[in-house]
Amino acid sequence: MSYNTLTLAGFLSALSYDDLPEVAIERCEALFLDWLGCALASRGMHPLPLFERYARRMGPSAGRSQILANGERSSAYFAALVNGASSHMLEQDDVHNGAVLHAGAVVFPAAVAAAQELGRSGRELILAAVAGYEAGIRIGEFLGRSHYRIYNTTATVGTLAAAVAVGKLLSFNQQQFIHLLGSAGTQASGLWQFLHDAADTKQLHIAKAAADGLLAAYMTAEGLSAAQNILEGEQGMGVAMSDDADPRCLVDGLGSRWALCETSFKFHASCRHTHPAADALSSLMQREGLSHEQIVAVSARVHQGAIDLLKWEAPQTPYQAKFSMGAVLGLIAVHGRAGVVEFADHLYRDPRVVAFSRKVSMKLDAEVDAAYPKRWLGRVEVVTVDGRRLLCAIDEAKGDPGNSLSRQEQEDKFRSLVAFAGALNADQADGLIERARSLREAPDIYRLI
Amino acid sequence: MSYNTLTLAGFLSALSYDDLPEVAIERCEALFLDWLGCALASRGMHPLPLFERYARRMGPSAGRSQILANGERSSAYFAALVNGASSHMLEQDDVHNGAVLHAGAVVFPAAVAAAQELGRSGRELILAAVAGYEAGIRIGEFLGRSHYRIYNTTATVGTLAAAVAVGKLLSFNQQQFIHLLGSAGTQASGLWQFLHDAADTKQLHIAKAAADGLLAAYMTAEGLSAAQNILEGEQGMGVAMSDDADPRCLVDGLGSRWALCETSFKFHASCRHTHPAADALSSLMQREGLSHEQIVAVSARVHQGAIDLLKWEAPQTPYQAKFSMGAVLGLIAVHGRAGVVEFADHLYRDPRVVAFSRKVSMKLDAEVDAAYPKRWLGRVEVVTVDGRRLLCAIDEAKGDPGNSLSRQEQEDKFRSLVAFAGALNADQADGLIERARSLREAPDIYRLI
Repeated sequence: MSYNTLTLAGFLSALSYDDLPEVAIERCEALFLDWLGCALASRGMHPLPLFERYARRMGPSAGRSQILANGERSSAYFAALVNGASSHMLEQDDVHNGAVLHAGAVVFPAAVAAAQELGRSGRELILAAVAGYEAGIRIGEFLGRSHYRIYNTTATVGTLAAAVAVGKLLSFNQQQFIHLLGSAGTQASGLWQFLHDAADTKQLHIAKAAADGLLAAYMTAEGLSAAQNILEGEQGMGVAMSDDADPRCLVDGLGSRWALCETSFKFHASCRHTHPAADALSSLMQREGLSHEQIVAVSARVHQGAIDLLKWEAPQTPYQAKFSMGAVLGLIAVHGRAGVVEFADHLYRDPRVVAFSRKVSMKLDAEVDAAYPKRWLGRVEVVTVDGRRLLCAIDEAKGDPGNSLSRQEQEDKFRSLVAFAGALNADQADGLIERARSLREAPDIYRLI
Repeated sequence: MSYNTLTLAGFLSALSYDDLPEVAIERCEALFLDWLGCALASRGMHPLPLFERYARRMGPSAGRSQILANGERSSAYFAALVNGASSHMLEQDDVHNGAVLHAGAVVFPAAVAAAQELGRSGRELILAAVAGYEAGIRIGEFLGRSHYRIYNTTATVGTLAAAVAVGKLLSFNQQQFIHLLGSAGTQASGLWQFLHDAADTKQLHIAKAAADGLLAAYMTAEGLSAAQNILEGEQGMGVAMSDDADPRCLVDGLGSRWALCETSFKFHASCRHTHPAADALSSLMQREGLSHEQIVAVSARVHQGAIDLLKWEAPQTPYQAKFSMGAVLGLIAVHGRAGVVEFADHLYRDPRVVAFSRKVSMKLDAEVDAAYPKRWLGRVEVVTVDGRRLLCAIDEAKGDPGNSLSRQEQEDKFRSLVAFAGALNADQADGLIERARSLREAPDIYRLI
């Protein structure tokens, strides 16, 4: 038995709604709204309909848990699966920089599906989500940077984060949380190999993390026992999946540090690794009053993870373009934004964007690399038509905790997402914003949408 | 794209029933019977009812696929899940020594569930199972010995083996098999950590491997794309999960070597790593005419994997006893067998077995260790009451390909298993033996039991 796992499980078991500071509750409601926008906006986008058809084929035709993309009901397992596939599709969901974990994309699909099935209140959902974020972020930090080189942390660690949220809805005691971590941890999987082919696997990863985590929780509730030391044991996740696992991270600031409040809202609709450079370029162009025609070259100074992930020099699809530094900076330079609308409308119809993207290169920067993943620094060097070399540095990207979105910006983002997908009309969007903002008051969340 | 993966996928796609030699078809029918016995005999055993309840809660209440333990019908996903949990519970299912893969435990639950759902014939089931075995065994050999130190190969590689079998039932082409390996491989998980606590995780591993493999196949059929080089890619399974991956194994003897025919039937109802020593002790006692009272010490000379896995010096449950060299050799010495009946009836009620188990120790043997996992050598040294030191070496344990079970022994094992569980009466057992032996003639397998 590991002391750290015991401590973490004890914290999760003892955590009550009254322990949560107002800032964590408010942030949780904001993250919930942010997640709803992401999940609803993916309606009809490939590969989501594949998951919907699979759920119809393998799952029950009725149930208490809602599939957001089509409004159908199913069992909690299939709602978690399909809503998981929805959550990350637009690359607009929240992220914790230090853990490189998109916690909302896995925690909310599992927790909402289970809360609907179990008839839990908004307050219970908030408590469960906070537990999932707090555990997931610490486990992500524990596995460290070496883990993310090979594994999609939101898939692997996401399984445990989703499991913990559902375990909290099931009112697990300390020993049940230990079993739960064991059953979730031994299912943790998700390799980055698919990025080399721009395949559909990211949605499979998130869907499975949410659903497998939920399965682990329901099986633990049934009485399934599991490894008592899945994180630090000699054949556990740390040994198997990391070279730099740091057990102290597992219990860092439990009860005083609210890791949930350190998450970033995504402002641009692209891979998070493009954001610091996007903001630095945007800032430089404003500062210097430059238009895109006045720029002949952009060098984005990045950490190694960005170079590893941003493989697409000539993206063929909007999804690939989200992983292309050139495409993202092209949209920023020409249109001033890289949101879902810009990706859909301008990327291939606007030759200026394509032309600008060819001017962009990436270069490993020692300072940026050393700060990562705790801090995501943005550094660009721009060469102008008149031969000037201009630098810009931003230390906190838009949406990061120290540079977060205002309530208005959060709501604008939500409205833009659901309007983009045609998922809700303006009145419906306003209503859902209101319900998310007062989630703590909801007696149950069965009728969410 | 990897040439080896391309070749393997091409082989799987092109393989037809007419390509199978009679010996492979016959072996497949025998393995099918062996699997049925294992799955049926686990009826009611913890933790199987937990999986049955989960399937009722999350799955449909009707369907074409049968849950063997209770006769209920569900969708293919839940039948694969619950039947997977059944297959490995008694530690009586088949194993491939070189791959350390229990292929039947994952391939048959997935393939039978899908074949019932899709209305496939016995012949199509045989072809699918052979494809699953051939791919799974080679992928297990590819990942090598280092993989098995941390990972339960039947869980990780089992996901791909199950996926391939279902993919064959869905008549996948070469490209679909490549996507399938990608979607299955990125879900591969299963850590040995649970063995330290004798937890229920082994059943979760097998259940999830069968079900996740099936999910990968149905999602691939829907059109989900995946990594093209999940096995050998720089962020693929070989890099992530092995230190000694050998890509040549992936294509070794495709179409001429039938790896399915190299599988072993388990004779003793215990962890496979105890079998060579059990046979060596049994052989020595017969050769020397010794009774258990005449033995004061037994030293089993074993490979490192046996020392790692057989942790139970004083097992508290029959399941733990299956992983105790002392308990297994105690049953062999006192009762001449270590079958399901002996584990259930004699282990704790017979003080002679407990007394003998205390005389047993394990010692790492360089020759045995070097031969493993290709060959599982049995070596014991016995000290007798009159002070003699006696040695016995067996090079092929009972049930291994060169020392396989006869048809009669296979059928006796099946009858003993289903009678032990009260799953079938004698007439029903005879009928099922007959149907399994003529699986190739079955127009469909909807009414299996």
